[in-house]
Amino acid sequence: MASQKGMLLVVSGPAGVGKGTLVKRLLEEDGSFGFSVSVTTRAPRPGEVDGVHYHFVTEEAYDELLAQDAFLEHAQVHSHRYGTLKSEVFSRMERGESVVLDIDVQGALNVMARFEDCVSVFILPGSFRELRARLEGRGTEQPEEVERRMRNARREVLEQPRYRYTLVNRTGEADAAYASLKAIVEAEKLRSTRFFPEVPED
Amino acid sequence: MASQKGMLLVVSGPAGVGKGTLVKRLLEEDGSFGFSVSVTTRAPRPGEVDGVHYHFVTEEAYDELLAQDAFLEHAQVHSHRYGTLKSEVFSRMERGESVVLDIDVQGALNVMARFEDCVSVFILPGSFRELRARLEGRGTEQPEEVERRMRNARREVLEQPRYRYTLVNRTGEADAAYASLKAIVEAEKLRSTRFFPEVPED
Repeated sequence: MASQKGMLLVVSGPAGVGKGTLVKRLLEEDGSFGFSVSVTTRAPRPGEVDGVHYHFVTEEAYDELLAQDAFLEHAQVHSHRYGTLKSEVFSRMERGESVVLDIDVQGALNVMARFEDCVSVFILPGSFRELRARLEGRGTEQPEEVERRMRNARREVLEQPRYRYTLVNRTGEADAAYASLKAIVEAEKLRSTRFFPEVPED
Repeated sequence: MASQKGMLLVVSGPAGVGKGTLVKRLLEEDGSFGFSVSVTTRAPRPGEVDGVHYHFVTEEAYDELLAQDAFLEHAQVHSHRYGTLKSEVFSRMERGESVVLDIDVQGALNVMARFEDCVSVFILPGSFRELRARLEGRGTEQPEEVERRMRNARREVLEQPRYRYTLVNRTGEADAAYASLKAIVEAEKLRSTRFFPEVPED
């Protein structure tokens, strides 16, 4: 019988590049994946539900988790803190589930340093102009916040060679980017380190 | 602009597992691949064309190529010799083409030892019964030759963990096996070591 080990998939890239949409679709269409709910100190955006999109916590509660070494990775982004709970990730992988993390570049680099076997994917925008249009289109960011994110993006794209895979998410071509992500996932399920088939007699 | 480096894809597995059919379809459908024509001392089968399916050579000519260190890998299988010419593989990769090698397990292990970055795929049969039926169905092998290949197959499947990927080619499910091979190829094209995208301003 073939057996299968769960994978830790890390999807990352600059803010606004569309990684959340790609990950959401993967979670909807591929039953082998669960989503690890991150802890954050930022305020919920409209429609975000505590315990579903994030665990929203106070600065004090976050400090307590840090002191307990509860995070697989944690990072400060734009004055807010985000962390991935070890307990969330490991309990799922022990059950044979794959886990996908939708995290910023700093957090992804931390995970990659700790887990060489994680499947890391960097998402690039089609162009910087497209990225700016997406950030402005959200309508939730102040102009100075957009500028800050654009500066961060120019620095973050330099980390792309450190990821196992790179894909380009062009505006209007989300299906192509998703097909690329899906190919990566399907190929990684066939890794000999993860897939243990035995040849039966009959 | 994105640029792309060619890959060396090694598809291997026991005789009769259907690797030739998978590779033929990949070559037909994916224009980025070229096929490296091997040198062999065995006689052509009906329909096989010299210079297209193999370079058919005498034992003496093969010895001469060996003496010139002309082979990337070479192996003896069932009393015949097979070799992959370095010149064939490297000239294609220098032109940015990917190369696929359809080779036996012994030859594949030789290539993997020399080129860590090669993309190695092991093809398993759905069962040993299916493999036997395929070998018998060819109609070109004597019963004792079938038995010898079955014994080889049982030894060869033990090498599966040394390949980067493993897939199962079940009789009657060739489309599923091909989809798996295609996912591996598409994912490997997105490897950050192979795919060098730059983010344009516009």
